[in-house]
Amino acid sequence: MVNVLFAAPDALWPAYAEALPRAFAEKGVRADLSRAHPAGSVDWIVYAPGGPIADLAPYAAAKGVLSLWAGVERLVSLVPPGLPLARMVDEGLRQGMTEWVAAHVLRHHLGTDVHVTGQDGVWRKGAGFPPSKLAPERPVTVLGLGELGLSCALALCALGFPVTGWSRSPKEDRRLHRLLHGRDALDDALRGAEVVVLLTPLTRHTENLMDARRLRLPAPGYALLNPGRGALIDDAALLAALDEGAVGHATLDVFRQEPLPPSHPFWAHPRVTVTPHVAAETQAPTAARVIAENVRRGEAGEPLLHLVDRARGY
Amino acid sequence: MVNVLFAAPDALWPAYAEALPRAFAEKGVRADLSRAHPAGSVDWIVYAPGGPIADLAPYAAAKGVLSLWAGVERLVSLVPPGLPLARMVDEGLRQGMTEWVAAHVLRHHLGTDVHVTGQDGVWRKGAGFPPSKLAPERPVTVLGLGELGLSCALALCALGFPVTGWSRSPKEDRRLHRLLHGRDALDDALRGAEVVVLLTPLTRHTENLMDARRLRLPAPGYALLNPGRGALIDDAALLAALDEGAVGHATLDVFRQEPLPPSHPFWAHPRVTVTPHVAAETQAPTAARVIAENVRRGEAGEPLLHLVDRARGY
Repeated sequence: MVNVLFAAPDALWPAYAEALPRAFAEKGVRADLSRAHPAGSVDWIVYAPGGPIADLAPYAAAKGVLSLWAGVERLVSLVPPGLPLARMVDEGLRQGMTEWVAAHVLRHHLGTDVHVTGQDGVWRKGAGFPPSKLAPERPVTVLGLGELGLSCALALCALGFPVTGWSRSPKEDRRLHRLLHGRDALDDALRGAEVVVLLTPLTRHTENLMDARRLRLPAPGYALLNPGRGALIDDAALLAALDEGAVGHATLDVFRQEPLPPSHPFWAHPRVTVTPHVAAETQAPTAARVIAENVRRGEAGEPLLHLVDRARGY
Repeated sequence: MVNVLFAAPDALWPAYAEALPRAFAEKGVRADLSRAHPAGSVDWIVYAPGGPIADLAPYAAAKGVLSLWAGVERLVSLVPPGLPLARMVDEGLRQGMTEWVAAHVLRHHLGTDVHVTGQDGVWRKGAGFPPSKLAPERPVTVLGLGELGLSCALALCALGFPVTGWSRSPKEDRRLHRLLHGRDALDDALRGAEVVVLLTPLTRHTENLMDARRLRLPAPGYALLNPGRGALIDDAALLAALDEGAVGHATLDVFRQEPLPPSHPFWAHPRVTVTPHVAAETQAPTAARVIAENVRRGEAGEPLLHLVDRARGY
């Protein structure tokens, strides 16, 4: 019997109290899942920030920390060194992110907001309205080519967009139109893009990645989509770039502070769409299987899946 | 030298006056393109409704009528019997339609209107807001599997939706989840769908296809998308079904009368989104190549592409 501590916000408990025991049973793992194991008796910690446990030091003797989320920037410093830390790579999360990105890229590409908000009897077509453009004429750049970024980039390719993918380290994928990597190629990846999607992990290297200078590299009036991490963007610089028209519209799902405070200027800005961190949510049934598989592997002495490189930060 | 009459609205002339001569040259066709050839001298007629010529009887000796549009319901009765009639099958039209359908299916699936119209500081997430659903849990039905319907259905499959495709005559395509055909299977195709996309041609059999009874077959609160033809829907029955909640939302791109009059109740209805016949527009550069290829074929004695079956109506 292994002791599994569920250390995540209370709101997540009902779904996982159902999904995790089922997943453990499927994987043949005999686990005692609880929110209250004494620190010294814990084998595995299922973790998400915002729950009852803010200090993981007492758990240094556990076998590993299994994150419920894909982004682990807070866990990297929280988890005692030497304690293995695995990220969540969840098919449901990947699917949800791909849907959000495809939906909002198409929304900007086709300008559907004009119709959604303009049901006033005016037939907005012909002289005075810009002619439409097809996807093959609309270059899109995706920054970050992990599980999420790559899935989004491929879905956009399938819809006909010419996609440039950029990542920190080199990737190979013949299905993408253009692959760039490394800091030196980042400016090139941004130049000329009419839609930019941010899906890099948040690390000390990517904080404020979209600063005042880089925000102005894509095509004037481009759409910026951030379903990644709030701190990838310098907020004040974005507001200035929007006011100038360098950025045509920003659709943001993630923020430095969540919920985004009602007084934040993003809410009132006519060229910003706020979505409430809904792009991709870990889905309990599929995420529970990933957790259970990692516990099974750990107990069997096999290498864990999705281990975080603590130096790299993801 | 063959005489090609351009019989389409004036607004289309500038684009085709440039694109058609280039396409004829590419295909090695020596053509005299004009808007004013005398009736008796015309070899080929490039046609779209709304232009200067409403009666095609004087052109019975021509070699064929080449429609600029995919939908030919008006041409079927206008073109003298015996005169070949070809529809437009245009890669640009197919691409545009696929983009519009993917954009609006995703828009309804993710409920993005709530965010686009609700930038009021309220973080719409958690208790009181419905949990999200992934595409594999959202059945979509596409009625009509011609070039446009099939392309849309495949794009939706690629995004993860379980797609049912229905067509009048049997089709084979292993990439679709479920294929149904014939009048008797139509009710089955509609039942349980959470999104319905209308892309059948308009014929005497499909006029008012979505009548009071069929509008109530899909899942309660479903989204109805009509980028096909306005007359596929019984407008009054749709308004009643919307008021009851049987239809949750209708996004309509085509109407019995266009532009849709400002007084039409669709404009004011809170659960209708009108888009001004923008889903798919024939693109002059690609369409001109289709026209030129058909003239080349006709002149060389080869069979025309995309010939309309006059009895069937498309």
